[in-house]
Amino acid sequence: MTKTVGVLGGGQLGRMMVEPANRMKIPINILDAPGAPAKQISAHAGHVDGSFKDAESIKKLAQACDVITFEIEHINTKVLEELEGTVAIEPHWRTVRTIQDKYAQKEHLSSHGVAVAESISLDHATEDDLRSVGAWYGYPFMLKSKTEAYDGKGNYPVKSAADIADALKQLGSRPLYAEKWAEFKMELAVMAVKTSNGTLAYPTTETIHEDSICKLTYTPARGVSLETRTAAEALAKKAVATFAGKGVFGVEMFLLADDTLLVNEIAPRPHNSGHYTIEGTHVSQFEAHLRAITDLPLSEADLQLREPAAIMLNVLGGRTPDSHVQIYDRAKQTARVRIHDYGKAEARPGRKMGHLTVTGASMREAEALINPLIAAVDAQKGRESSVPASPPPPQPLVAIIMGSDSDLPILAPAFAILDSFQIPYETRITSAHRTPDWMYTFVTGAEARGFRTIIAAAGGAAHLPGMAAALTTLPVIGVPVRASVLDGVDSLYSIVQMPRGEPVATVGINNSTNAALLAARILGAADERVRRCLKAFYDEHHEEVLGKDARLLEMGPTAYLEAMRAVKK
Amino acid sequence: MTKTVGVLGGGQLGRMMVEPANRMKIPINILDAPGAPAKQISAHAGHVDGSFKDAESIKKLAQACDVITFEIEHINTKVLEELEGTVAIEPHWRTVRTIQDKYAQKEHLSSHGVAVAESISLDHATEDDLRSVGAWYGYPFMLKSKTEAYDGKGNYPVKSAADIADALKQLGSRPLYAEKWAEFKMELAVMAVKTSNGTLAYPTTETIHEDSICKLTYTPARGVSLETRTAAEALAKKAVATFAGKGVFGVEMFLLADDTLLVNEIAPRPHNSGHYTIEGTHVSQFEAHLRAITDLPLSEADLQLREPAAIMLNVLGGRTPDSHVQIYDRAKQTARVRIHDYGKAEARPGRKMGHLTVTGASMREAEALINPLIAAVDAQKGRESSVPASPPPPQPLVAIIMGSDSDLPILAPAFAILDSFQIPYETRITSAHRTPDWMYTFVTGAEARGFRTIIAAAGGAAHLPGMAAALTTLPVIGVPVRASVLDGVDSLYSIVQMPRGEPVATVGINNSTNAALLAARILGAADERVRRCLKAFYDEHHEEVLGKDARLLEMGPTAYLEAMRAVKK
Repeated sequence: MTKTVGVLGGGQLGRMMVEPANRMKIPINILDAPGAPAKQISAHAGHVDGSFKDAESIKKLAQACDVITFEIEHINTKVLEELEGTVAIEPHWRTVRTIQDKYAQKEHLSSHGVAVAESISLDHATEDDLRSVGAWYGYPFMLKSKTEAYDGKGNYPVKSAADIADALKQLGSRPLYAEKWAEFKMELAVMAVKTSNGTLAYPTTETIHEDSICKLTYTPARGVSLETRTAAEALAKKAVATFAGKGVFGVEMFLLADDTLLVNEIAPRPHNSGHYTIEGTHVSQFEAHLRAITDLPLSEADLQLREPAAIMLNVLGGRTPDSHVQIYDRAKQTARVRIHDYGKAEARPGRKMGHLTVTGASMREAEALINPLIAAVDAQKGRESSVPASPPPPQPLVAIIMGSDSDLPILAPAFAILDSFQIPYETRITSAHRTPDWMYTFVTGAEARGFRTIIAAAGGAAHLPGMAAALTTLPVIGVPVRASVLDGVDSLYSIVQMPRGEPVATVGINNSTNAALLAARILGAADERVRRCLKAFYDEHHEEVLGKDARLLEMGPTAYLEAMRAVKK
Repeated sequence: MTKTVGVLGGGQLGRMMVEPANRMKIPINILDAPGAPAKQISAHAGHVDGSFKDAESIKKLAQACDVITFEIEHINTKVLEELEGTVAIEPHWRTVRTIQDKYAQKEHLSSHGVAVAESISLDHATEDDLRSVGAWYGYPFMLKSKTEAYDGKGNYPVKSAADIADALKQLGSRPLYAEKWAEFKMELAVMAVKTSNGTLAYPTTETIHEDSICKLTYTPARGVSLETRTAAEALAKKAVATFAGKGVFGVEMFLLADDTLLVNEIAPRPHNSGHYTIEGTHVSQFEAHLRAITDLPLSEADLQLREPAAIMLNVLGGRTPDSHVQIYDRAKQTARVRIHDYGKAEARPGRKMGHLTVTGASMREAEALINPLIAAVDAQKGRESSVPASPPPPQPLVAIIMGSDSDLPILAPAFAILDSFQIPYETRITSAHRTPDWMYTFVTGAEARGFRTIIAAAGGAAHLPGMAAALTTLPVIGVPVRASVLDGVDSLYSIVQMPRGEPVATVGINNSTNAALLAARILGAADERVRRCLKAFYDEHHEEVLGKDARLLEMGPTAYLEAMRAVKK
């Protein structure tokens, strides 16, 4: 009943496919050279020694397997076509053939209504042809090889007409196309899974490239709104659904300045931008791939993050044969940095030797774990560090806003409580009446900045808490400040009597102590550390009151009252 | 710089030690038979073929390693003693020798002030001796072999004097001791890690045994208070700190009826009750063991749960050679059930073949995932299911309490919103004035029952929300209900004007819509699914208002007003 899987290629992707296969008792045979990374963690006689480009070896592998898949798209699709009907091949060889030719891939996507960068086929192009492209698209534009291109190899950014001769010299012997420059503000990637029951998406990842090789991924993409992330996931699913066959696909995208999305390119296999899923999500991209191609159940809920944030850092071969091992040695100093070495025998500069993953309760927490490693990688390359030297300050979880600095003294007890609970907060003046634009900017951006709750203080015709509640889905706590007249009742009514739809969690007049404790209770609902702080706080106050009661009993009310008066003097 | 680790034994524990070693590029050599589970996922020439009981094989292994450890405590400590000084042995061979003899282990712990069950040495015991024990301890008492006892083998519960002859027949040839029966209400286990910088503890786990073999673990232990769990972790650290050497120790404990704890026994190695850590905690017990014995940094923060709950179910060999595979096949139907097959060649009844782990945002969620598998295991054994046939209802996250059923109509809009957001809730009548005891019981138990927030509605001299806030650290949302007089202002003041210390998040008079939305915002602060629901809700209302504005512009105010009046008729 369990299907035997055959994999063309036993590099790091094959190896990371073997990990869940080992756990789940899914038989898996690798076609690659002896001692390939995947074979190092799978000692059995079913593997095939040979090249994943060799027709006979592929046929030999197919004979002993129920379903054939691959860790690289640069494979011989003719052999797969010949094998059709004798063994399942996932995803379909036609999908691979389309994707192998990047121009054909773009035309395919475009014909299915998926937004891609504008491009034009340029086989046997002359310098004049390229000058025409430059005149039409403007500079810079990208000159790309249609085939065998990866990690920036086969791409040439033509910055001006002066680059044309060199571009043709570098790439002229290959089938080419030109692509209009996409002025993106961020690169995103979404891993999508095509199953027999539909296409599913992982969360949207931010990818950072250096020297055209993936360096880092951040999931969810930092500072990208829920709307845009949802749109990216929908676009990835739409794109992947157009291809035949089952399995995991990596969809790389550009996020443009106006928040629209373009698909850059698609890989018909597990992808570097999805490595974070091993620790980050309930089911990794490698297990998802095995599930998809062997028809085991999978749902989009299985692809969600287990903790709020995940970061992956690639470890490449460096200047010396042990450069990557030095990075591992540094990484081992922090137990929460998970090392994934690929077991490659030889380290060449720029070769992917392994990766590191961290997960955290916030992106800031994950950054604090990984930044020293990013700095180590930068230093090894002799580059300036791309991250701040000091650890990022802790993620502020509570935003405390007020209409005027005259409210600040009222809020002082709140600061003391949050400090004693070690809950990071940020305090700002954002008047609803004097700076409505700044209030709008601050509150609408609060969720993306990682705040979990907002405390807003205001007096009189107190609009700030209610306006904040109208501009965010975070819980807003309102502190009515007693202003010059009406004893604070005006503030209280203005804050608590919100229309149906936008609740303000209102506390007593001037009672910022309770606002801070309420913020702690809200955070504590999902954080045992904060609950322990609250418990200690209440235990202490409980003891204090019992102590007073004992003293009152001992002293009697008259002596107690006298002592109280003496202290107050 | 990286130390080479040698492991005596390559069964499942050795195999699960190899997994992080592979990831982290820690060289690891296994001493066991060819094809042992650990060797299947580690193809290299450094392993030693042989028995972990054979002196020559152990010496051969030691020659190629920097530090020797073991996956089983039933090893030849004399050989290890001979090797002292030539290779590091972790934990210390004296520790193993003490622990191998369960009576010596108990005496050791007792002498260090660690609470253990009362026991007495009984070598060469006669039936008369046992009758004296029965008279002294009462029946039942446990007769135990001092050595080579595991999974219930070597233990005999002596229920009455009539058992004595058979007990001696079964165990009489072994070195024995008798132990006073511990009337426990629950078995707990804590994995502790002895490092060069001190002893650390994992969270407290509840263990459930069947036929004296571990069947299930639940972490954190269900229904056990934070105080007791903290005490169990402290006891485990105290016990483990008494032993020489470094590494992971499994500490099994009894929780007695009066909430005191006794140490039952200790294993000087990774332990079945810690398998949940592979997915459950930041750093698994296997990586923690490697870190401890090779002096890599580790802190107690690294040992905490990544999600609030984790459950492990053992998969044992059954009636047929493929019984365990049938369980895997069932498990594969739920992607979030993680399968760990150990690669054992032969399945014998009761043999540990693998385990399953689930993690979840609540224990209820984890139970919903694992219960069908527990039922499948029970069915395979021909036993009645130990779990309910229907999946547990979803964990209610919001408690909605009111003083009187007359408040129910006011709360109806809240039910509708929570239903539409698929947020489970429980609605109860808990009057502060008429049922103070029931209110006290319900609210003080709310956190342990998994509620994340409480909505309390009350009118007039509205005490319920404030009393609830005084009895829990959960956030309490107060809905002032408009009673017969004063238009609800009495209720509002009674709820919002709480003293410093106990905040009630007060919403507008009769505005249960806002109470439910506030509850959703509180849950959404840590749950993106709920935030997405909120976003969809607000988007819809936004569109609705814009639609009305467009119609108003089109119709003009007079026609619009007429149309409004017509609809109202």
